[in-house]
Order: sequence, then structure tokens, then C-alpha cells
Amino acid sequence: MRTGVWLVGARGSVATTSIVGGLALRAGLAGPTGCVTELPELRGPALPAFADLVFGGHDLATTPLYKRAEALADAGVIPWRLVAALRDELAVVEQELRPAPTGVTQADRAAAVVRDLTSFRERHELDRVVVVNVSATEPSPQAHPGHADPAALRAALDGPDEVLPVSSLYGYAALLAGCPYVDFTPSTGLRLPALAALAEEARLPYAGHDGKTGETLVKSVLAPMFAMRNLAVGSWSGVNLLGGGDGATLADPAANAAKVQSKQRVLGETLGYVPQGGTRIEYVEELGDFKTAWDLITFSGFLGTGMRMEFTWHGCDSALAAPLVLDLARLTAAAHAAGLVGPLADLGFFFKDPLGAPTHSLGEQWARLTAFARQLHGGDGTHDNVG
Amino acid sequence: MRTGVWLVGARGSVATTSIVGGLALRAGLAGPTGCVTELPELRGPALPAFADLVFGGHDLATTPLYKRAEALADAGVIPWRLVAALRDELAVVEQELRPAPTGVTQADRAAAVVRDLTSFRERHELDRVVVVNVSATEPSPQAHPGHADPAALRAALDGPDEVLPVSSLYGYAALLAGCPYVDFTPSTGLRLPALAALAEEARLPYAGHDGKTGETLVKSVLAPMFAMRNLAVGSWSGVNLLGGGDGATLADPAANAAKVQSKQRVLGETLGYVPQGGTRIEYVEELGDFKTAWDLITFSGFLGTGMRMEFTWHGCDSALAAPLVLDLARLTAAAHAAGLVGPLADLGFFFKDPLGAPTHSLGEQWARLTAFARQLHGGDGTHDNVG
Amino acid sequence: MRTGVWLVGARGSVATTSIVGGLALRAGLAGPTGCVTELPELRGPALPAFADLVFGGHDLATTPLYKRAEALADAGVIPWRLVAALRDELAVVEQELRPAPTGVTQADRAAAVVRDLTSFRERHELDRVVVVNVSATEPSPQAHPGHADPAALRAALDGPDEVLPVSSLYGYAALLAGCPYVDFTPSTGLRLPALAALAEEARLPYAGHDGKTGETLVKSVLAPMFAMRNLAVGSWSGVNLLGGGDGATLADPAANAAKVQSKQRVLGETLGYVPQGGTRIEYVEELGDFKTAWDLITFSGFLGTGMRMEFTWHGCDSALAAPLVLDLARLTAAAHAAGLVGPLADLGFFFKDPLGAPTHSLGEQWARLTAFARQLHGGDGTHDNVG
Amino acid sequence: MRTGVWLVGARGSVATTSIVGGLALRAGLAGPTGCVTELPELRGPALPAFADLVFGGHDLATTPLYKRAEALADAGVIPWRLVAALRDELAVVEQELRPAPTGVTQADRAAAVVRDLTSFRERHELDRVVVVNVSATEPSPQAHPGHADPAALRAALDGPDEVLPVSSLYGYAALLAGCPYVDFTPSTGLRLPALAALAEEARLPYAGHDGKTGETLVKSVLAPMFAMRNLAVGSWSGVNLLGGGDGATLADPAANAAKVQSKQRVLGETLGYVPQGGTRIEYVEELGDFKTAWDLITFSGFLGTGMRMEFTWHGCDSALAAPLVLDLARLTAAAHAAGLVGPLADLGFFFKDPLGAPTHSLGEQWARLTAFARQLHGGDGTHDNVG
Ligand SMILES: NC(=O)c1ccc[n+]([C@@H]2O[C@H](COP(=O)([O-])OP(=O)(O)OC[C@H]3O[C@@H](n4cnc5c(N)ncnc54)[C@H](O)[C@@H]3O)[C@@H](O)[C@H]2O)c1
Ligand SMILES: NC(=O)c1ccc[n+]([C@@H]2O[C@H](COP(=O)([O-])OP(=O)(O)OC[C@H]3O[C@@H](n4cnc5c(N)ncnc54)[C@H](O)[C@@H]3O)[C@@H](O)[C@H]2O)c1
Ligand SMILES: NC(=O)c1ccc[n+]([C@@H]2O[C@H](COP(=O)([O-])OP(=O)(O)OC[C@H]3O[C@@H](n4cnc5c(N)ncnc54)[C@H](O)[C@@H]3O)[C@@H](O)[C@H]2O)c1
Ligand SMILES: NC(=O)c1ccc[n+]([C@@H]2O[C@H](COP(=O)([O-])OP(=O)(O)OC[C@H]3O[C@@H](n4cnc5c(N)ncnc54)[C@H](O)[C@@H]3O)[C@@H](O)[C@H]2O)c1
Ligand code: NA
Ligand code: NA
Repeated sequence: MRTGVWLVGARGSVATTSIVGGLALRAGLAGPTGCVTELPELRGPALPAFADLVFGGHDLATTPLYKRAEALADAGVIPWRLVAALRDELAVVEQELRPAPTGVTQADRAAAVVRDLTSFRERHELDRVVVVNVSATEPSPQAHPGHADPAALRAALDGPDEVLPVSSLYGYAALLAGCPYVDFTPSTGLRLPALAALAEEARLPYAGHDGKTGETLVKSVLAPMFAMRNLAVGSWSGVNLLGGGDGATLADPAANAAKVQSKQRVLGETLGYVPQGGTRIEYVEELGDFKTAWDLITFSGFLGTGMRMEFTWHGCDSALAAPLVLDLARLTAAAHAAGLVGPLADLGFFFKDPLGAPTHSLGEQWARLTAFARQLHGGDGTHDNVG
Repeated sequence: MRTGVWLVGARGSVATTSIVGGLALRAGLAGPTGCVTELPELRGPALPAFADLVFGGHDLATTPLYKRAEALADAGVIPWRLVAALRDELAVVEQELRPAPTGVTQADRAAAVVRDLTSFRERHELDRVVVVNVSATEPSPQAHPGHADPAALRAALDGPDEVLPVSSLYGYAALLAGCPYVDFTPSTGLRLPALAALAEEARLPYAGHDGKTGETLVKSVLAPMFAMRNLAVGSWSGVNLLGGGDGATLADPAANAAKVQSKQRVLGETLGYVPQGGTRIEYVEELGDFKTAWDLITFSGFLGTGMRMEFTWHGCDSALAAPLVLDLARLTAAAHAAGLVGPLADLGFFFKDPLGAPTHSLGEQWARLTAFARQLHGGDGTHDNVG
Repeated sequence: MRTGVWLVGARGSVATTSIVGGLALRAGLAGPTGCVTELPELRGPALPAFADLVFGGHDLATTPLYKRAEALADAGVIPWRLVAALRDELAVVEQELRPAPTGVTQADRAAAVVRDLTSFRERHELDRVVVVNVSATEPSPQAHPGHADPAALRAALDGPDEVLPVSSLYGYAALLAGCPYVDFTPSTGLRLPALAALAEEARLPYAGHDGKTGETLVKSVLAPMFAMRNLAVGSWSGVNLLGGGDGATLADPAANAAKVQSKQRVLGETLGYVPQGGTRIEYVEELGDFKTAWDLITFSGFLGTGMRMEFTWHGCDSALAAPLVLDLARLTAAAHAAGLVGPLADLGFFFKDPLGAPTHSLGEQWARLTAFARQLHGGDGTHDNVG
Repeated sequence: MRTGVWLVGARGSVATTSIVGGLALRAGLAGPTGCVTELPELRGPALPAFADLVFGGHDLATTPLYKRAEALADAGVIPWRLVAALRDELAVVEQELRPAPTGVTQADRAAAVVRDLTSFRERHELDRVVVVNVSATEPSPQAHPGHADPAALRAALDGPDEVLPVSSLYGYAALLAGCPYVDFTPSTGLRLPALAALAEEARLPYAGHDGKTGETLVKSVLAPMFAMRNLAVGSWSGVNLLGGGDGATLADPAANAAKVQSKQRVLGETLGYVPQGGTRIEYVEELGDFKTAWDLITFSGFLGTGMRMEFTWHGCDSALAAPLVLDLARLTAAAHAAGLVGPLADLGFFFKDPLGAPTHSLGEQWARLTAFARQLHGGDGTHDNVG
């Protein structure tokens, strides 16, 4: 099953790490640490092999992929020897990267993206192409009448307005090109009525949104722990200190707000009440591609006794995100092959703010994910998303 | 369903907090924070009401229960106003506390315990009495031929040897008296072939062992998180600083070893490999009834990138343990009423080192526990433990 | 040496703890833990004894002092038995508390304060009264022409403008009444040219500002450590989570800004450069009178090797501040008795943002403070502040 | 002032980092971050320039220096580009490394060391050679009558006994060769009556012992902070997790005991009482050349209010130690040139367990060190150590 992985933001940290990792896995130079789809509970015949993944993508930036990979090696995100060993393979992928589309109207730009995707699929004789958004986080978009339904949307896109935020425009183009779509960012993507309807029409599955890699991952196991033990969480305060490209973007208050909101949702929905406190994101350039999060949780136990827990998470976001990007590409490709349509709620395990998912508990998400994988690999065939 | 809760170590911190809490719940002076059996997923008609619990127990110590409760209030474990308000009720329980049994042979001492239990059950017209061991942790016991089977055991107990460690002698007496038994400590309890066989003969259920209240509770959600994400844990090192009676006991190297061993099991069994590092318990009198645990976890992600997490847990052990003692008494009473026999593997949720339990993941233990509760409250009746 | 301690904000947490503590010390019910002036290096005949301190003060609030003390005991700030034991003594102090002054112009209100201070001094036959500002932190004030010199100030105060922020108005009144003044808050106090000149005219000493009790205290020893070791601090980020009255005030962005600014000064001045990162203050009501601060410091060593340190400080602000209030009252009284005039730079040890002090290093501040005390107790008599 | 730096344990982590760093400084490839002697307060004409340092040393191991440097670069201790750039210079130093001495008696082995030192000094026309012990920590030595005085020692060394631990034998040889000696380790070195007397006879200065680089460095500023604020430290518990060569050595209980003891001294001597708790060292290979220390401090403030602080230190020991080795070589060379004799108490700033030093407070040690440097650079000439 030859599968294209088309990365929007293909020269970013997450994308570059995903590409280097995918190539390293294919070349047998690295193991699948961090790849969930290689665990016994998920592995199986329905998933494309790592060797069957072909990479391409769009980016506004023009820094050569190899330079980006070198910079990531300098920053301690990936090992030097891998970058050196994969120099030729990276040059091959470089040929598949395209500038962000241009055009007068958004309809023009969408058409340019469709051409890029179709040409990529045909050139490499791919069974399908999964589009994965790993570009910079956008501010929350303005409402627009074109968001309401497919007809209104098509009409509006031909006009002069910036109807759709960029993430949604790429999503729209993916649907037009017959490609399943994954949103790894907190941006809007397909989360607009018009686009959800279009995905149904196009019989395409999609997944999202906002990859769960750090503090929120930890929250998604600790919050259920407090809930299962009937302990009353009085406050949960967190701070995320991060450098890197994503950090700089999030320093923008509008983007920050979008991200913080998606982070707090886990708590309220898991505990059944919202504890005091909040989560902050601070940009500290010096921290580079590593992020340090610190959380303080105060809780009370039997008869009101006050207690507390704190944790510090020091993670490399791109190294945590990249294997999940590969996992999502594989699972979404398999879902497409199986004829599934619409939001893939069973992939909630991967996301901070999962589409249509009833739970934020990692354990419950895991149970759904493994059941989903069993079905893909030859389960009973009944599945909500089956079109 | 009038249910006796017979506490071995009845004047200890955990027992006293359990009794104060049980009386406060009955009197409507406190809510059930920390009581798992009051969560919607577990609540139901099969469980005895808090108001139906009657307390009694054995202890070596003679400090009046009220004095112990005052000391716990001084230490910030329970509120003053509760202790003051429950003075009379505590005096009533005081009447039900018995000194540790005496007698020349262990058989004599077991018989004394049986008399205490039987008399308690009859005096209060109880449907049943659940014996819960919350006495001081014992060192690992010496092997003895009498441990092998019931016949050998009975013969040996009549002789001069200290055949059984104290926790097991109480367990043996509980079985003779027809009482289900819960071991909240890391001690041996019923975990000897002879006693397991006797429990079968007596058609009695039992649960254990070692209440999971602090660092291990956190481990039982964090270790699965690393496993589910296929992250490679390189080292996991922990230190537990604790004062209190239990701390002093654990300062004894033999008891410490027993406890440390039960703590490390969670990791190996969940991850599938044992990371470097270990867990230490240190006695720091100054910390009183609160325990501070600190853990450092180093792990590597995709392409070997090194990361780390650390957490500090500052908990009041007795406030965490006491509601679980009430939960276990209720659930074990219900299991007995339902005719279940043998080790209650479905109660693994409560224990660091669960009897016959195939998992250390809190999420999976929760799934088993809630299924178990549904059955008790009127499920399909099929159950492994049903005799 | 009978000394009045007049607290502006006398019903607040810091003031109430100071009063309870002063009374407890006098009654021999508590020791001087936290009182710097009781250390061998500072103790001596020039300081008024605790028994010679007489308390009074102003507050906008009307909650009885005893109620405030009870609330602090409930919150774990001070022990219950002390509050109960000092009930009568607190009632006596209650008689010395006055509402905030009223009057049409600020001059009228200053005159009312002067009357309160003079009457307090005379009624109790005090050698002197030290005014200590421990009222709520103000926002940064508006500039006003009246701030420039004493003549302009006097003229303006008779008019309708709110010329001075409240802290400065109390300071002005203190000077008129012949009282030395201590500003324990980040507010403006005497830090205006007109008021500095007036203090010189009145031959009065004063001290400030912003008591150093938590995270900044730790910074004032850690930052010099990095400096003395020539380690390059790349980033220093902190978060302060606090409840309590002061927390609520600081939640106001303007007051927050004033406080945050005073916190960052320590770093830049000690290191010689300002590292990346910043300090945030967040209000979390649940935390009550305790504050949790967390700081992350990243630094590089020899040949650029990256390292990091983090600390968590969990302190009770009022318990840290109150003994310093007593210390400052004693030292400032002694300075007044010794004829010192103007800003007491030697008291920089006590403050986040010390008046006229050339150093933020606690070690160096300590050296100055102990030399100062030696002089007061009978040193050579030469002193910068001597008038 | 051409100065030899003779490293005992010359192929270890600290030594290799010191050599790479010294060469890098000479070549202008790195700055002096972490070098205390480059601070304005210490810099001056009395110290040999980095360019005047010539490296040599002994080691039991035979791994080429370049290989050790490569391994340190792999471990993130030093940058790759430096190692590559200094390949030739490292090969030159390689020529100056000698195997550990052999010989039948300890006197023979000492003589071999003397020959190595003398030949090094002459070959390079050095003004002097400072011997610095950075070899593996030894277990505490056995008492021996030869330790009492020089005569007894000389007699014993000619016999068959292992009279001196290795660190002391190197120290003895240094004295015979007329070389000042620095002990950077917790080993015995010159701390024996016979050797102290010999140093006096030989008119040589020496310094030690046990470089202060991590947790103890932090303790030496935090403990004085608590003392200066008259706060009562109830407990101070620490754990040090470390990999690396030194970690493996310290896993040996005897060496561990020596190190732990030197670590606790700081607290008792600074606070005036020994708080509860202790410090542990645990070997965790996975952590490599980085060390993570965690300390919990509980303290009480005014009226007994309980508070707590914890810190985590994540440092690279060799990167912290190496610049201090260069500092100590420079300062001790200057002290020798100035005619100082005996233990250099003014260098206590650098050590966990400073020779003859009256203080463990970093601030006070700094005051002494800077005064010492001023004298060396042309102070008044009066100095305790002047012979
Ligand atoms: N790394 C994680 O753990 C993680 C977790 C959740 C979500 N995310 C999200 O993943 C995204 C990527 O993160 P990153 O660290 O790689 O950021 P990055 O800044 O390194 O990369 C973003 C890339 O997107 C490109 N880009 C921006 N606008 C574009 C456009 N209109 N069209 C095409 N390309 C565009 C940029 O040029 C850049 O190369 C972010 O939105 C981030 O919030 C990351
Ligand atoms: N508190 C927790 O979170 C927790 C968690 C897991 C396990 N546990 C276990 O629970 C037990 C109780 O803990 P605690 O903090 O209450 O300790 P504790 O020391 O306060 O109480 C133990 C009591 O047992 C009594 N005792 C000792 N030997 C006895 C005997 N032979 N017969 C009768 N009584 C005897 C003692 O006199 C004492 O009153 C310990 O074994 C502990 O390891 C506690
Ligand atoms: N606690 C510490 O560690 C610490 C450290 C540094 C500075 N401070 C400062 O000390 C001050 C007091 O802190 P707190 O925790 O006691 O606060 P608090 O809110 O408990 O007390 C402040 C008191 O001031 C009174 N007040 C407000 N405006 C007034 C006015 N115009 N006239 C008279 N009284 C007035 C209030 O009614 C209140 O009783 C704050 O400014 C705080 O920033 C405290
Ligand atoms: N790194 C720090 O922060 C720090 C701080 C204080 C003290 N120290 C001390 O510095 C010493 C060196 O630390 P390291 O990390 O470099 O250790 P390391 O194990 O990397 O190096 C020690 C070297 O000493 C050599 N050696 C052992 N016995 C010897 C002998 N008899 N003669 C000659 N060489 C011998 C070994 O072969 C090895 O090369 C240790 O004693 C350590 O305790 C280090
Ligand atoms: Na911490
Ligand atoms: Na921490």
C-alpha cells in the first residue's frame, strides 16, 4: 500500500523530524521508539509499512530540508549520524517540497494545492495521499457566512474575501483532491460545518486535532487518577516554557489563547468540575526545541486533608510529535482504505482536543484505539465511520 | 446488611482515621471524598451503607482511641472539630477494642482471636465481620514446613514454633471464624499455600495486598502512559521520605526491603522491562504523618532523544488509606454476601501488589473494578470467584 | 525604650501575625524563630525589647482583630492555642486601632493621621512611634507636580487633587508627626523627591521597600552563587501562585506589574545582565495564605555545557513577613534614637527593592546589616546617616 | 610564569575536560565561563595565563586522551567541534601522560613519581608544577603508625606495608619534588600529620579538599540563607543520582560514606545544629556524566508555621569541575610564587570540605578568596601562610 504523506509546514521542526525518522526507519537506521503503531496491540496488516511511505509537502519557508535537519541535530533533537547518513534521501524528498500556493482568490490557491497533491500521487503511483497539517498555529479565525455549508463556501471562495484560515484552505483542497486529512495543530482545519459536510460528500475520513505530546499527555492520565480515587482537585496550575519556532508563534496572544483553551478542556471534562488555576505558555528562546512544563495540583482527601503534587516535564516536542505523525498517517491511510468516512473519533488518543471524542482519559482512549486497530486488521466489520 | 469492620492494628493511624471517618460519615459530618465506592460507577445496593458499619479491632498498644484521634488532629490529618464532635461515638468504639491475643501456642492465640471475632459478631447481631489488617508491616517471614498445606499447618500451630507471622495468624483466625479478610499491608497475610487452601475450604473471599496510596498510585498511571506511547524508560528512581508510625517501622531494613520490592513490581510488569534506578524509603520523623515522594524518570523518544520527568507527591498517607479501608470492607462484605470465594483479583485497583492480578495499570484495574461492582449490584451472575 | 509600632493596614494578615507574635513573645508563649534581630550578630542593648513594643494602627477594614487572628489560625498560619491564650491582649490592641482617616483634602487627612499618631504616643508615654506600612499594594501612581519639592507638595495637598498615593500620604503624616517610617510594601511611600527632602528636614530615618520573604529571598542567594562561579545564566523563569488578601490585590494587573518589576531587579543587578524569562504572579484562591513559587534556571558552564536548576518554595508569607516587621520596627527605632536621618540603606537585607542599596546579594546585605547593628550597639559612632 | 599542571587521574572525565578546556582557552576557541579566576574580583598579574599552562599526568587507565575526549563529546559534556579542532594539541599532551608508578615498596613508587614530575618540569622549563589529584575517590584509609610524623613515615614507606592511600602517596611525592598539591577529591591526600609536617618542612602550600560543584554548592548558599533569617530547619534530605566513572566508584559503600560525610558537614556547621535527614548517592548508569540532585528542606518560621522548599539540580559534574581545576592550579601556583606555605584556607570557596576553613558559607568564602587574590596581585604582603 504505497502511501503519500503530504506535510503542510514541511520544513518545520515536526515535519523535518518526521521525515528524517521515516527515512531512518526505512533504512533500518533507527527503531520505532515513540511509534504507537508498532506496539503489539496496534501492529498489523492493514497499516502501510514505513517503507511504503513517500514524503512531500508545502511550506512558506525555503530553507533546505537538509539544513533544517542539521539545525535539529545541533539542537539535540536528532542524532548527527542520522542526518549525515540520510543526506541523499533528504535530497530526494527536497524535490517533493512545494512553496505555499499563490493565486488571486482562495479558490485559485485551493486549485493549486489540488494540482500539487494530484501530481504527487500520480508521479509516485501512490494508492493514496494523507495530508497532515503541521504548519504554524493560526490565531482563531473570524466567522464568515461561507463557513455554513458547501454551497455558500464555494461561492465565497471565488470572491475577494479571506474566507478560510489557511489550515482550512489546505483541508478543503485535500478533500477536493480525494485525500484524507489530519490536523496535528490547534488550528481550525476541517472544523467548520461546510467542510465537515464536504468530507461526508467526498466519502473521506479525517482526524484531529492538536497533537498531545507533553503536559496534556500527563494530565490525561493524572486527572483520571484523581477522578477514579474520588479525590477533590482544588487547583491545577501549570506553566509551559518553550523556545523553538512553535514557541515564537505561541507568544502571539491570539494563538496562545487557542492553545491554552484546548489544554484546560481535559481537566474539566475528566473531573466533572473545573479546578482553580490555569495554564500559561511562555516563550523562552534559550530553551530551544525542548519544553519544560511545571504543574502544581492541590487536592483534598478524606475529611478534607490538604495534599499536593507537582511535576516537571522536560520533553523535546518534535521528538514526541514526529512518531505520532507517522502513526496518524498510517492509521488514517488504513481507515481510508477501509472506507471509513468523517471524523475518526477513535484516534482521540493522539490529540489534546479530539474530534467528537467523548473522553480525555488516555486509558479510555487507548481502549478505543486498540479496538479500532483490531477492526482495521480484520475485525468484525461494524464500525461507526464505515460509509 | 449490618457489617463488622474488625481492624488489626486498631489504634494505628490508618485505623483511627478510618474509624473517625466512618463515624463522621454516619453522622453526616463529612462527605465521602476519597471513597471510591461512592463514585457513580461503583455505588449501589449490594454494598453495606456507611451507617451499617460497626467497628472493632485488636491492637498491641493501649493508647485510648480518642487520644490517637487528638494526635492525628494535631498533626493535621483530621480536623479538630470532627474529633471533638465524635468524642462519645469514639468512646463506644473504644469498648470494642481488644488487646493482642495471648496464649502459649499459636493455636491458642488463634483461638483467642476467633473468640473475639465471634463474640463481636454476636453481640452486635452482624451479618458478617470483615477483618482488615492495618497493623505494622512485618519483616519477611521465615519459611516453615507448616506453610505447605492445612494439615501441616494445624499440626505445627499446636507446637512451640512461631509458625506463622502475626498477619497470617490473624488471617488464619479470621478464616476459622468465617470472616473474609483484607490485607492492607505488605505483610504475608493469607499468601501461604496452607492458608489459600483453607480459604477455599471455608468458602471465604479475601483481598490484598498493600494499599496503593502514594508514589505507587502515580506510577500505576504514569508507567502505562510511557508504555502506551512506546517511549523507552531508561531509569526510574524514587525516594520516599516519611515520618509517622509506619515510617519508623519501615526504617527497619527488613520491612523496608519488603515494601521496596512491592513498589518496583509495578514498573517491570507494566513496561515489560525493568528500568535502571530504585526506590528508597527514608524515615524523617519531622515529616510526621505526611509523606513526600520524589521520582525522576528519564526516557528516550523517537531517534533516541533523551527527555525527563520528575514529580513530587506530598500526601497524607492515613487520609489516603482510610477511605480505601472503608471501600474494601464494603466491597469484600458484598463479595462474601454474593458467595465469592478465594482471592478477589478484581480489587487490584486498591493494592500495590494485588493478589492474582494480571495488571498494574490503574486504568485497567478500574475497568475490572467497575465491572465487578456492576455484577455485585445485579449483573449477570457469572463470576470467577463464585464458589 | 518604649516604642510604638503603628501599622498601616493593621487588620491585614501581616499586621495581625505581627501583633499576635509580638504579644506572644512578650508573654513568653513563643520563641523568636524568624526574628533576625535575635541572632547573636544583631542582638544588643540599642534595640527596644519585645516587651517594650506597643501596637496600634489604621485600617479601612473593620473586622475585629481577634476574628482575623482566628481566621489565620484556621488557615494554618498561626497556632490556635496562641490565639486563644492572647484573647485579652488582642482586645487591648483592638482599642488602639483607628479607621482610615477622612477629610476633604489630603492635607486634612494627613492632619487626622498626625493627631492619631501623636495621641497614641502621648497616651502610652512612648519614646517614639515607628510607622510601618503593611497595607494593600497600590497601583503605580500618576506623576504630579506636587511630588517635586516640599513647597509644591504642601500647596497641592491643600487643593482638591489626589496628589499622593495613600502610602505616601501616610508617610507624609508620619514625618509631620516626627515618626520614622518603614515601607514593607512595593508602594511608593516616601520615594518621591518632596518626601525625601521632608524627611531630611525633619531629621528622620526611614526604610524600605517591599519585604523580601519568598522567591526573591532565594534569588538573592542563588543569583550571587551563579555570579561568583562565573556561570552564564541563560534563562530564569518563575511563577508565583498565591491566594490570600495580598494575592487578590496583586491579581490586579497594575499592582502585579509593580511587584513583578521589583522582583526582576535582583537578577539583572546581581548578574550584570538580564537573563531571558520573567516572573509571573497568579492568584489561586485555594492556596490561601500559602504561596508556592517555582523557578527554572538554565545556565551554561565551561565550554557551553547546558545545565539547569529548579526550585519550589512553599511558604507562608505572613509568617515570613511578621518577624521582619518586628525586626524593622526595632532597628528603625534604634536608628532614630541614634540620630540617623534619611534612607537606611543598611537595612537592604529585608527588602526586595532596597532604598539606595548598592547590592541585592543577601550575603553582602548581611555584612552591612551586622556592621550597622554593631555601630548601634556601641560602635565607633561614624555613620553615613548620622544627621 | 610557565606552570605545569600535573593531573593524577589524567584520563578521567574531570581531567580530560580540564585539558580540553585549557587548550581551547589557549587557542581562543572558548571563553572562560565557569572560571572563577577570570572574574574582575580575582583576575590579575599574579596568576599564570591560560596560555602558560602545560599539562601532564598519571593514570592507571590507558585509553588515549583523544578517545576520552570523543566519549565526553558523545555524552554532551564538551562540544564536538572543540574535540575535532584540538586533535593535534591533544596528541601533544598524550606524550606527557605516564602510567601509574610501579615499584616494590611505596618509597620506590614515590621515587618514580618524583622522577616523572622533575623530568616534566625540566623538559618544559617550567617555573613550577602544581599536582592536582582528580583520580577516583578512595575508601577511607586504615590508620597506620607511619601517619604520625615524617620520620615514622619515611621508615614505614621503605617496608612492605601499604602505608599510605594512593592519594597521599602522590601528595608525598609532590612534596619531595617541590610541587604544591591540590586535592580535588574527598580522598586523604595530605591530611595526615606526617604529610602536613612535611609540607611545612618543604615550604610548600597545598589546597583541598573535594571540589564543590553541585548540591553542596547550592547548600552553601541556602543554608546560610536559613541561618541569616533565623528560620529553623527541621529536615534536609537529599538524593544524588549520578552515572559516569565517579558514580560507579561511589556506588562502593566505603567511598560513598566518605563523600556523604563531607556533604553533611556544611549543614551542621552553618546552621549550628544538624537537621534531620541525610544525603544519599545512587549510581544510575543511564544518567551518564550528568548528575541530578534533589533536596527537600522543611523549616519552620515565626510561631512554628511549617514550610518547605525543594530543589532539583541537573548539572554536568565535569563541566563544573574542570574550570575550577584550572582556577586552583593558577591560584596555587601564584601562592607558591608568593612564598605561601601550608594549607591554603583562603581557597575554601572551591571545596566541600575545606582545609582549615572556619566557614562553609559561600558568601564568606568568597570574601576571603577575593581578599586573598588582592594580596597576591600586590596587596600589603601580610598573610598567614607566608613562610
Ligand atoms: N511538537 C509538538 O509536540 C506539537 C504538539 C501539538 C501541536 N503541534 C503543532 O504542530 C505545528 C508545527 O510545530 P513545529 O514545532 O514544527 O513548528 P515550526 O514553526 O517549526 O514549523 C511550522 C512550519 O510551518 C510553516 N508554515 C507556516 N505557515 C505556513 C503556510 N501558510 N503554509 C505552509 N507552511 C507554513 C513554517 O514556515 C514552518 O516551517 C504547530 O502548529 C504546533 O502547534 C506540535
Ligand atoms: N497509610 C498508607 O497509605 C498505607 C498504604 C499501604 C499500606 N499501609 C500499611 O498500613 C499499616 C498501618 O499503617 P499506619 O500508618 O496506621 O501505622 P501505625 O504504626 O500508625 O499503626 C500500626 C498499629 O498496629 C499495631 N500493631 C503492631 N503490631 C500488632 C500486632 N501484633 N497486633 C495488633 N496490633 C499491632 C500498632 O500498635 C499500631 O497501633 C502499615 O503496615 C502500613 O505499611 C499504609
Ligand atoms: N507577606 C509577605 O510576605 C509580604 C512581602 C512583601 C510585601 N508584602 C506587602 O505587605 C502588604 C500586606 O500584605 P497582607 O498579606 O497583610 O495583605 P492583606 O490584604 O491581608 O492586608 C492589607 C490590609 O490593608 C488594609 N488597607 C487597604 N487599604 C488601606 C488604606 N488605605 N488604609 C489603611 N488600611 C488599608 C486592608 O483593609 C487590609 O486589612 C501588601 O502590600 C504586600 O504586598 C507582604
Ligand atoms: N566532577 C565533579 O564535580 C567532582 C567534584 C568533586 C570531586 N570530584 C572528584 O574528582 C575525581 C575525578 O572524577 P571523574 O569524574 O573525573 O572520575 P573518573 O572516574 O572519570 O576519573 C578518575 C580517573 O582516575 C584514574 N585513576 C584511578 N586510580 C588511579 C591511580 N591510582 N593512579 C592514577 N590514576 C588513577 C582512573 O583511571 C580515571 O581515569 C573523583 O574522585 C571525584 O570524586 C569530582
Ligand atoms: Na519539584
Ligand atoms: Na521539581
